[in-house]
Amino acid sequence: MSIEKQETYAELELLLRQLSVWVKAEGRKVIKEGNYDITPSQFDVLQRIYFGETSMTNLALRLGVAKSTITGLVGKIKEHGYVSYSVCEEDHRVRKLEMTPKGLGLIRDVLERRVQFIRKLFSTIDPFLVEEFRKVLRIVNNTVQIQYQDKEETKE
Amino acid sequence: MSIEKQETYAELELLLRQLSVWVKAEGRKVIKEGNYDITPSQFDVLQRIYFGETSMTNLALRLGVAKSTITGLVGKIKEHGYVSYSVCEEDHRVRKLEMTPKGLGLIRDVLERRVQFIRKLFSTIDPFLVEEFRKVLRIVNNTVQIQYQDKEETKE
Repeated sequence: MSIEKQETYAELELLLRQLSVWVKAEGRKVIKEGNYDITPSQFDVLQRIYFGETSMTNLALRLGVAKSTITGLVGKIKEHGYVSYSVCEEDHRVRKLEMTPKGLGLIRDVLERRVQFIRKLFSTIDPFLVEEFRKVLRIVNNTVQIQYQDKEETKE
Repeated sequence: MSIEKQETYAELELLLRQLSVWVKAEGRKVIKEGNYDITPSQFDVLQRIYFGETSMTNLALRLGVAKSTITGLVGKIKEHGYVSYSVCEEDHRVRKLEMTPKGLGLIRDVLERRVQFIRKLFSTIDPFLVEEFRKVLRIVNNTVQIQYQDKEETKE
């Protein structure tokens, strides 16, 4: 591969990484400004639960901390009303972690803040270019999704 | 704003967020595959130190954990030889946190893995489109940088 091309990919990696850091920081402003009683680590856990990860073992794995740490973090966000336990209809011994309206509201506010930030950044750019940008992102995300799916299928 | 445009920004936010999660996961494979003795939380700290954040207070603020937690994490990565303390020439009481060659090697391997992942994803896309994509990313990153700079200047 030519040096020029290699530099292009290195630049893309850097630009994507920086943008992602900024969007994340912007979204998390909601926590501070809304005076939410949740720390960044607790928010990380809440976000994972929102996206469907409810087992303690998987939460610990994904966030790379001890299971006891996760138990503590979940305890805190439960105490502050962001999540709750529901009892399984079929088996009353099974408890399932669920988002409360307060938890859902926070996550949605953060996502909305991120979208508004993206809007502010992209709204001054030539719509044709934005469309090309979206096209590339769609292709790239599709490629990853297909790869992940292949791997999952290979497992079986 | 039209509904269509609002949906475009929501889609861009989602696509950028997903891509960033995948790139991050790909980079961190280096830790597992290289049998590095570092947990994800410890790696988060190492990464911050690599990008110039060496004060315990700022590390705690940035990662949203207690200062005592940071002290523990830094202790672990120091113990495993990823960082070390250097004594300040001017004032021997001042100690500065520094990356060791082992720490630098790990961060660079992770970054390189991310770049190679980006290369794999983008190399099949029409070079003209990739160029347009890079152009948009450059504009967007510039916009954020100018905004951040403005805020910094307003502070003074």
